[in-house]
Amino acid sequence: MSTIDSFENKNFHMSADEFRKQGKELIDWIADYYEKVESYPVMSQVDPGDIYNGLPDSAPVEGESFQSMMQDVENIIMPGITHWQSPNFFAYFPANSSAPAVLGDLLSSGLGVQGMIWATSPACTELETQVMDWIVEMLGLPKKFLSEQAGGGVIQDTASNAALCAMLAGREKATQFASNEKGCDGKLTVYTSSQAHSSIEKSAKIAGIGLSNVRLIEVDENYAMDPDALLKQIKIDKQAGLLPCFVSATVGSTSSSALDPLTSIGKICHQENIWFHIDAAMSGTAALCPEFRFIHDGIELADSYTFNPHKWMFTNFDCNCFYVADKKSLIDTLSILPEYLRNEATESGAVIDYRDWHIPLGRRFRALKLWFVLRHYGVKGLQYHVRQHVKLAEEFASWVDADERFELVAPVPLNLVCFRHVAGDTYNKQLMEKLNASGQLYLTHTRLDGQFVLRLCIGQTYTEHRHVERAWQAIRLACD
Amino acid sequence: MSTIDSFENKNFHMSADEFRKQGKELIDWIADYYEKVESYPVMSQVDPGDIYNGLPDSAPVEGESFQSMMQDVENIIMPGITHWQSPNFFAYFPANSSAPAVLGDLLSSGLGVQGMIWATSPACTELETQVMDWIVEMLGLPKKFLSEQAGGGVIQDTASNAALCAMLAGREKATQFASNEKGCDGKLTVYTSSQAHSSIEKSAKIAGIGLSNVRLIEVDENYAMDPDALLKQIKIDKQAGLLPCFVSATVGSTSSSALDPLTSIGKICHQENIWFHIDAAMSGTAALCPEFRFIHDGIELADSYTFNPHKWMFTNFDCNCFYVADKKSLIDTLSILPEYLRNEATESGAVIDYRDWHIPLGRRFRALKLWFVLRHYGVKGLQYHVRQHVKLAEEFASWVDADERFELVAPVPLNLVCFRHVAGDTYNKQLMEKLNASGQLYLTHTRLDGQFVLRLCIGQTYTEHRHVERAWQAIRLACD
Repeated sequence: MSTIDSFENKNFHMSADEFRKQGKELIDWIADYYEKVESYPVMSQVDPGDIYNGLPDSAPVEGESFQSMMQDVENIIMPGITHWQSPNFFAYFPANSSAPAVLGDLLSSGLGVQGMIWATSPACTELETQVMDWIVEMLGLPKKFLSEQAGGGVIQDTASNAALCAMLAGREKATQFASNEKGCDGKLTVYTSSQAHSSIEKSAKIAGIGLSNVRLIEVDENYAMDPDALLKQIKIDKQAGLLPCFVSATVGSTSSSALDPLTSIGKICHQENIWFHIDAAMSGTAALCPEFRFIHDGIELADSYTFNPHKWMFTNFDCNCFYVADKKSLIDTLSILPEYLRNEATESGAVIDYRDWHIPLGRRFRALKLWFVLRHYGVKGLQYHVRQHVKLAEEFASWVDADERFELVAPVPLNLVCFRHVAGDTYNKQLMEKLNASGQLYLTHTRLDGQFVLRLCIGQTYTEHRHVERAWQAIRLACD
Repeated sequence: MSTIDSFENKNFHMSADEFRKQGKELIDWIADYYEKVESYPVMSQVDPGDIYNGLPDSAPVEGESFQSMMQDVENIIMPGITHWQSPNFFAYFPANSSAPAVLGDLLSSGLGVQGMIWATSPACTELETQVMDWIVEMLGLPKKFLSEQAGGGVIQDTASNAALCAMLAGREKATQFASNEKGCDGKLTVYTSSQAHSSIEKSAKIAGIGLSNVRLIEVDENYAMDPDALLKQIKIDKQAGLLPCFVSATVGSTSSSALDPLTSIGKICHQENIWFHIDAAMSGTAALCPEFRFIHDGIELADSYTFNPHKWMFTNFDCNCFYVADKKSLIDTLSILPEYLRNEATESGAVIDYRDWHIPLGRRFRALKLWFVLRHYGVKGLQYHVRQHVKLAEEFASWVDADERFELVAPVPLNLVCFRHVAGDTYNKQLMEKLNASGQLYLTHTRLDGQFVLRLCIGQTYTEHRHVERAWQAIRLACD
């Protein structure tokens, strides 16, 4: 053994002392970053290729110092960052972060455990189950989603993957697992509104259902799904010999925060025996506050439900919560059990193996960051910040409404304001580009009824009144 | 605006000072953890329900202190941790971590950016592209995988999702995008060996291809796919009117580190016009060292290739590298472009939008941790540690071989040793359970030729000679 012993003390690892030193400096770097984040242009101003070309063509042969990496972070990486954690970020949907979430995620990195099955780290599974149960109560979700009932919740990476899993479970329910066994037959159909997230169409492609079998149901004047049109389409498809298997309703559409009528849609799904999924990716968080729970009216009819704490609940990406009313249907759809993962706990049936609740096998300890956020803020703290954001959106909407150069183009049930200048599409596009190029704020657009519409979404953790007020000032000034 | 101004100074956020304080203490906590990790039993000894029942039934209404959370981490969570980062962890495949990876991941959490498209943070996309190009050179992969060529690489969460994406691209190539459009028709077939990872079968279910259309090709005496059997099966399927669309070969099977003959399989795929995917989840890392590049002989024939730096390249989960030879085929398979994501950079065609390279839309800045690892260790440092692990596996195998009570049951090309006591299945199972219950080490099993086999996989970042030596002593002692 002596041949190897001589190497024993040699290694290329970072020493514990160096980790302590660099780690603490990085903590300070992050704290400094948040303190000065408003001094950066919100939207990165680099051109394509700038970052790629600023980096060496090859990995270093010899190791480099941590200082040299952090210098490159400052000089090369930072100019290419669009600051999602700036309180002046109003684009897309927020992907917000918070100090307890960053720390929870750091702990998860440090422990570096795998939670693919219960046996590979029981705490990773059981903390997740408990926190997912907490959230059922916190959002006033139906008790059927609790782990002690037939249902249960799991943390996934994104609402896209949650929708895919829901669609697969619906597909298997409709075909009595024949799709899993024999493959799809081109006769399955799925339903969502024309305003739904693109992930539904993407899921239908992935699941072998096909884009031509996705029915984008028309919407009403508030961009919410028309349930009569849904029922009509289901009947047409059934008469044509097709097999409707999945309906996805949206709570807070990406374009305009539209709220689909869950009760009507759910009743249709029950009557027609179709899997009913609800996608509340950003807006679900609002249900922390009893006064906003109306957005979930009808959720008791859902087979599955999803929302993202990584959007508006101050928990770092990735953290999607996905609930099913009947966990057996999900597990039967996705389960695998190769010999090398067999173990006593699994075979006893007494534990949850989350591997069978989603696509990937490996899984990170994501419950830690969510647990830290819930405990740091408490229910009251989370409610406070959500209420503030909604209040700010209402106030911004009132300013738009009072200025005759602008118009609101969709209802503002929560934290997203869709508006436009009356001067037309080209003007609004140029206005947006001018504002984003200024670096003062960042907002994005959509199209509603064919018109180019500006979206201002208030959900970044640290956005306060002064940021929204300044955004409005900048918008008005840019029009002068 | 005065109604809100009064709230302006009130909030429930963790202050910057508190973040600095707690963050630094947590860095110390993690450093302490690694220093004492060997004092914990490697495999958690809790019973089902212990952790869940140790936690409160509801989220707190009022926020709690960070200290109270860390106390619960110590008292409630830690007993439920199986220590994947213990150098005495020899189970499954490693999911190793390192100090630079933890710091890179912390920086990613702190910045909290989204990299779904180039425009949402150009650095997130371009650092990833550059680092993925570096790895092509580092592992000696074919130049066709470079971003400047027709191909390119992307970081995904797991090899499971990489396999799914590859299978989808193969499905669409075979059907000229008809599966995406009209759904599958039950006539597609896919091929892998009986020793392949379970994710191939899972992908076939997800993709609407169906489990009955997965052909598990027989293996030779070394558990490697038999290419003659593959060709024969493809011919049979074609004659039956089926459409073979995807072959997945394995470099380092999960059960026994078997190496499929890539050249023979690749030639068959070319001749039969079938997508050729290579899954080198753990073992690909070995190609850092020129003397181990034989494992990739034939890779120039591959349409796609994947390996996991989060297994054996010292980069925290999740970090899977997925390469395609023809990026257009992947993008055409998965692309979506809703109005709210339209932007000038995308429309110019000058940038990469990684959203279209995988299933989820949102994506974390994962390239940072990989970049930090490559720069901290340098190519030489990574090579050193990989060589040490392989050398340790060889030495362990030689000990097994020299002890007449034990036998090696598969070749040991790299870092996984499959062995068993001659006393039979029940004895080996009890031996494993006894060892794992001791807390001194953790190893798992598989079945080869129907026999219960022990697997000792050497890949944890900090595993050194003394850990492997002690493992062997413990195994021998347990047999006395």
